[in-house]
Amino acid sequence: MPQPVLEEIRENLLSFRGSGMSITEISHRSALFDELLHDTITRVKRLLGFGNSHHVLFIQGGASQQFCMIPMNLALPGRPVDYMNTGVWSTKAIKEARIQGKDVRVIATSEDREFSYIPVDYTVDQDASYLHFTSNNTIMGTQWHRYPDGKVVPLVSDMSSDFMSHPIDVTPFGLIYAGAQKNIGPSGIAMVIIRDDMLERVPDTLPTLLKYTTFHEHNSLFNTPPTFTIYAINLVLAWLEETVGGLEQVEKINRQKASMIYEVIDKSEIYRGIAEANSRSLMNVAFRLPDSESEQRFLAEAQKQGFIGLKGHRSIGGCRASIYNAVTLNSVKSLAAFMEEFEKTSA
Amino acid sequence: MPQPVLEEIRENLLSFRGSGMSITEISHRSALFDELLHDTITRVKRLLGFGNSHHVLFIQGGASQQFCMIPMNLALPGRPVDYMNTGVWSTKAIKEARIQGKDVRVIATSEDREFSYIPVDYTVDQDASYLHFTSNNTIMGTQWHRYPDGKVVPLVSDMSSDFMSHPIDVTPFGLIYAGAQKNIGPSGIAMVIIRDDMLERVPDTLPTLLKYTTFHEHNSLFNTPPTFTIYAINLVLAWLEETVGGLEQVEKINRQKASMIYEVIDKSEIYRGIAEANSRSLMNVAFRLPDSESEQRFLAEAQKQGFIGLKGHRSIGGCRASIYNAVTLNSVKSLAAFMEEFEKTSA
Repeated sequence: MPQPVLEEIRENLLSFRGSGMSITEISHRSALFDELLHDTITRVKRLLGFGNSHHVLFIQGGASQQFCMIPMNLALPGRPVDYMNTGVWSTKAIKEARIQGKDVRVIATSEDREFSYIPVDYTVDQDASYLHFTSNNTIMGTQWHRYPDGKVVPLVSDMSSDFMSHPIDVTPFGLIYAGAQKNIGPSGIAMVIIRDDMLERVPDTLPTLLKYTTFHEHNSLFNTPPTFTIYAINLVLAWLEETVGGLEQVEKINRQKASMIYEVIDKSEIYRGIAEANSRSLMNVAFRLPDSESEQRFLAEAQKQGFIGLKGHRSIGGCRASIYNAVTLNSVKSLAAFMEEFEKTSA
Repeated sequence: MPQPVLEEIRENLLSFRGSGMSITEISHRSALFDELLHDTITRVKRLLGFGNSHHVLFIQGGASQQFCMIPMNLALPGRPVDYMNTGVWSTKAIKEARIQGKDVRVIATSEDREFSYIPVDYTVDQDASYLHFTSNNTIMGTQWHRYPDGKVVPLVSDMSSDFMSHPIDVTPFGLIYAGAQKNIGPSGIAMVIIRDDMLERVPDTLPTLLKYTTFHEHNSLFNTPPTFTIYAINLVLAWLEETVGGLEQVEKINRQKASMIYEVIDKSEIYRGIAEANSRSLMNVAFRLPDSESEQRFLAEAQKQGFIGLKGHRSIGGCRASIYNAVTLNSVKSLAAFMEEFEKTSA
């Protein structure tokens, strides 16, 4: 979370907008909360530049619950659902569609080279209900830089780890979802952007809280939403719009940040990037050192100098710099300098 | 939320337990969070006095998602599910079981007198999968003061609005659930207490995030939990244990609080309690004035004097004092005094 946002939350924790009540106590049926929710949705639409074609929903359960809800709600009877497999998160999404007995077709996978790249050769089933892909893969540090064509088959994307990190055109997307905890707020919610025509697919027979239509018809207020979380998201979006200056600006900064680290890696003799060059993520830079001993040394030294969280995901080990929106240019600059220094002194 | 808890959250918002990171940024896989989660579960067990017979789970989606998950997970094939209908929340729970095509039997309802009482005459199907009831009904202000017998058929109860307001014996309960936002924390989570034998009922075929076994096997960490919310719950439970002195103590205070308001009602010529006397809730005191005009006047005058949120639920109107754990004895005393004064001056 951006530091100014945390400070603002602290400042107003005991009295939300002068009400004398904490945001954790405000009724979700109050005018105050209604205004907050409306402002949050408006900011999402303004940042991403869309109007009434798509709707913004807030659903509990994070991206994992969306893995279940998407096939339940959007798979059309007798038609396949297409998935791209680019890593752990895609694999989980595929698993949930299979559990429901859908005709799942994995039309491309980068499993052959340990998910170190984004597939470019694939054929989408023209009668598929949707095409699902994970826009950024946190573990191996890969990212889609050119989305699949969505003219015939609606795109569905898990954007949890690069949502609001660059502009996107939502037009070809039937549904975009993002667990909040990477770029837009605290954990405990997924933001879902759903295209109007997708709502017509929702089967009547689903449990109420698992239908996108329930959230759309009640403006995400069918049941009590996580009010604190939405408040924090609102502040992050306001920071993005007003302090950073929007998504083009944040993308520019994110590119600068990522370049600094990748440059160190590319001219290094000890660091080796995990993702293939044209699939590199701007959010997660995953890399290795020559051996596990030097990785341990690197991580220990980094921690000593205040760089925490550089350990790679437990499933693959190695090192990883996660440089989400809230990470400042300056701290990435320091990290790059530290990496260079470490290489010099360990030579 | 108790004022000291809000103050503690504010105090530590930028640095959780001296880590230099906010609780909204801490990894749910960190030792720090693990310790917090463990402490929270231990406090629940200590407050309610149970051991390994039951497990404490944290599930997103509030009580509404539990309405769906309970029949999905706990209905036994070919056997009915029994429900008591005591108001809006029970009705919603019943609706979700029916959507799933379960053999739902409503074995008692207080609909005949507008849900103003808790049924005492009912026969539980001895082969029922479970017996579901709502322990406290916020809208009409009724509460179960003696739970059904759970020797043969496991009890399942929505305790969202009176959880942790008095001691309970969890033994006969197959499952207890409570949306956090009334007595134990901010909105965005349900605490679920599930008996060990119930886990054996969970069908393998369910989506991963809708299975109680997923949450049990991963200690509620299969996916990212709402870390801030669990932190706030931890502080509320610590306040309950250490400042208030436990559930017997909080029940004593809650009884005192409720009595003060009910006494004013009982000796009044203008206030009329909605719940029948032996079904009265200690959490929500719902009452009416002779006509809508005097109710408007009462609410306006109350608001002027700083008593907010006294309006009855939009579905029935009237007035309602919600006096959850966090409401102090003193503020209830002031409210009772205000009610007496209002009656005098409006005579």
